[in-house]
Amino acid sequence: MSKLYLVSTGPGDKDLVTPKALEAINVCSDLVAYGLYLELLGSVCDGKVHHDLPLGEEIGRAQLALDLAANGKNTALISSGDIGIYAMATLVFELLDQQLKGESNNPQWLNVEIEVVPGISAMQAAASRVGAMLGHDFCTISLSDLLTPWETIEKRLHCAGAGDFVVSFYNPRSKKRDWQINTARDILLEYRPATTPVVLGRQLTRDDESITILQLDQLSSDDVDMFTLVSVGNSETQHIVNGDQDWVYTPRGYKNKL
Amino acid sequence: MSKLYLVSTGPGDKDLVTPKALEAINVCSDLVAYGLYLELLGSVCDGKVHHDLPLGEEIGRAQLALDLAANGKNTALISSGDIGIYAMATLVFELLDQQLKGESNNPQWLNVEIEVVPGISAMQAAASRVGAMLGHDFCTISLSDLLTPWETIEKRLHCAGAGDFVVSFYNPRSKKRDWQINTARDILLEYRPATTPVVLGRQLTRDDESITILQLDQLSSDDVDMFTLVSVGNSETQHIVNGDQDWVYTPRGYKNKL
Repeated sequence: MSKLYLVSTGPGDKDLVTPKALEAINVCSDLVAYGLYLELLGSVCDGKVHHDLPLGEEIGRAQLALDLAANGKNTALISSGDIGIYAMATLVFELLDQQLKGESNNPQWLNVEIEVVPGISAMQAAASRVGAMLGHDFCTISLSDLLTPWETIEKRLHCAGAGDFVVSFYNPRSKKRDWQINTARDILLEYRPATTPVVLGRQLTRDDESITILQLDQLSSDDVDMFTLVSVGNSETQHIVNGDQDWVYTPRGYKNKL
Repeated sequence: MSKLYLVSTGPGDKDLVTPKALEAINVCSDLVAYGLYLELLGSVCDGKVHHDLPLGEEIGRAQLALDLAANGKNTALISSGDIGIYAMATLVFELLDQQLKGESNNPQWLNVEIEVVPGISAMQAAASRVGAMLGHDFCTISLSDLLTPWETIEKRLHCAGAGDFVVSFYNPRSKKRDWQINTARDILLEYRPATTPVVLGRQLTRDDESITILQLDQLSSDDVDMFTLVSVGNSETQHIVNGDQDWVYTPRGYKNKL
């Protein structure tokens, strides 16, 4: 029986792609992914059928991957980062669920064997590049209100603030959305100091990586685009400077024992 | 100049160790890690000096790693999962910070070059094994009150509940602590249905892996130990069954568009 692999390829650096991800791609004849992801992966993708679909056509992409596997092709649906975190994996299971409930007409999907290969997400890449930003309890919030009502997002922002979680924002801005990250900043400022360290990571672990460390009250949508990962420290996160090296870390609480 | 690598080796499966982690270990003469982690890594550790310290001596381990690197040894401080998430990385920066503030007497540490290598954390391994549990906004909470006051943890539990985040619990139980996970369950039950799916993952991605899917009101400290990762779905997380295969996924909200 053919198989559908949901494959995570990590933040971008080829050396952060796991052997398991490469092996999954290797056994497949068909790859469903943005062209850019495949370029980063290099020769492992050679000789395979590439299926690309325009940005925004996530549902079509998941359906295509299920159809290919149902038709006997070992197929990899590929995402950068972790395919389970704000990426394609959950959509495949939504489609499967719909079929199980009899709400779609694709019984062939139920015969597809599925394996999910996890990967390193952008928040982890950003944290590693600046030190240990995720050193204590943290949360992630997507600022895209395309699929989630803004009221839900706003409630989560308040809860993240009140709980003093380190917060990583995914989808902080798009071509059509620019105000959400500023509102998120203002809500968090109700709960934590203006000096709270913020990390902006763009093209993380890639050749054109850029990383900026600033304070929460300096965060502005002008410095953020759809490829930026934004992590905001909790009230104890420290920005320290050792010579020409900046580090940001969130303590776990060893201080009283040091 | 010698270098200190803070190296993540992922959940356990050798095929989930990144080439970057292996290369970092490869260039080091000295490894600071639990013996068990090194066994999982195999031959890359051969011929290197292993430094092991008893469980609980985290501060000593971080100091030793800094000292070795300051004394000219390329050193890897190794942790399973992601070393930046509830692991050793942040402690190294706490020690560095203490020295920068003149509160310790180890100026040699300031000359150490540090590189952090991220990895796949237990919550991601668990999510991948059951489908797409982390498909929408999530948070992590450590239930250890050794370093964090219980009041802080309890507040975060309420915020995680009120914000309807998927919640992953690290350190859910230890030999001396058993009640926290039950209290956490009761708090979350104030905010989400008794039928909310919960995943218990133990020895994730290893030969003796066990994964259990249950409902929130069935969660009990009796089924959890210090090696268990506990992930609790949000109010929309689904547990579906396709033949003999169980899946758990948290929808992103495509349903209205399917």
